[in-house]
Amino acid sequence: MAIKEMPENECRAFLSRTSFGRLGCSLDNQPYVVPINFAYEGDYLYSFSTLGQKIEWMRSNPKVCVQVDEINSHSEWVSVIASGAYQELREPQFEIERAHARKLLDKPHRWWLNALAERQLRSGDDLIASLFFRIRIESLSGFDTVSRSESMPGDPE
Amino acid sequence: MAIKEMPENECRAFLSRTSFGRLGCSLDNQPYVVPINFAYEGDYLYSFSTLGQKIEWMRSNPKVCVQVDEINSHSEWVSVIASGAYQELREPQFEIERAHARKLLDKPHRWWLNALAERQLRSGDDLIASLFFRIRIESLSGFDTVSRSESMPGDPE
Repeated sequence: MAIKEMPENECRAFLSRTSFGRLGCSLDNQPYVVPINFAYEGDYLYSFSTLGQKIEWMRSNPKVCVQVDEINSHSEWVSVIASGAYQELREPQFEIERAHARKLLDKPHRWWLNALAERQLRSGDDLIASLFFRIRIESLSGFDTVSRSESMPGDPE
Repeated sequence: MAIKEMPENECRAFLSRTSFGRLGCSLDNQPYVVPINFAYEGDYLYSFSTLGQKIEWMRSNPKVCVQVDEINSHSEWVSVIASGAYQELREPQFEIERAHARKLLDKPHRWWLNALAERQLRSGDDLIASLFFRIRIESLSGFDTVSRSESMPGDPE
């Protein structure tokens, strides 16, 4: 079958040109999957969120994965999965990393960060505050279709 | 914020009109997320796969979730998550359910089932055989945007 495993540099190149995927976390072996916006750099995926179930779960169990795909048709798709560890960028310990995350995420997601800041200012509710985190990538794998094939995204493992 | 939680009947209606999402499984609290094709009916999501990591993991730990979304823009999206239990439709015990799964999946995914069958015939490799399974839905939740909003898919928990 014309599905090829992607070498690590291709997985990284793919992550560099994408910014949206699905984050999987797990508590007591119950998985939970949500959409995620991210910025990839080096060995990290940087992201932000408001407080909620996924943050609570990742605080309890930092083992996570991020799956990113690009699907043009049944026979033309890419799917990359990065497994790693959740790290919350709290101040003051991670002040530099937090500022760096904000900078990386500012351009593609400024409208959203601004909206969050405004809402927080209006409501005074800290729960709305943006919480920055990153995922340290520990393993990376990906599959890519090669020209026309019988493949589909449900298949690769 | 103009994000609303979807009542269960809306989540079910959404699953009825979709057939592609992301499956999360977990082993030793390490989550793993892959794309999945499915057919929804009643309390089940039916699907098929070849043998591989996700099947091995789900056999070890049947707790899974399926996340399905439809994203038109930053401010217009739906995301539904179904959590439940993996059940492999092995013969002879699940002969009827397996035939039912094949029937449900045949129309949208016939090209793929046929391709698998042909490859198996050519290669004689049982690993390529289609393995049918279903996920018994135990909980269902979803979020939907309401007209124009500040929302984005990375936000709801």
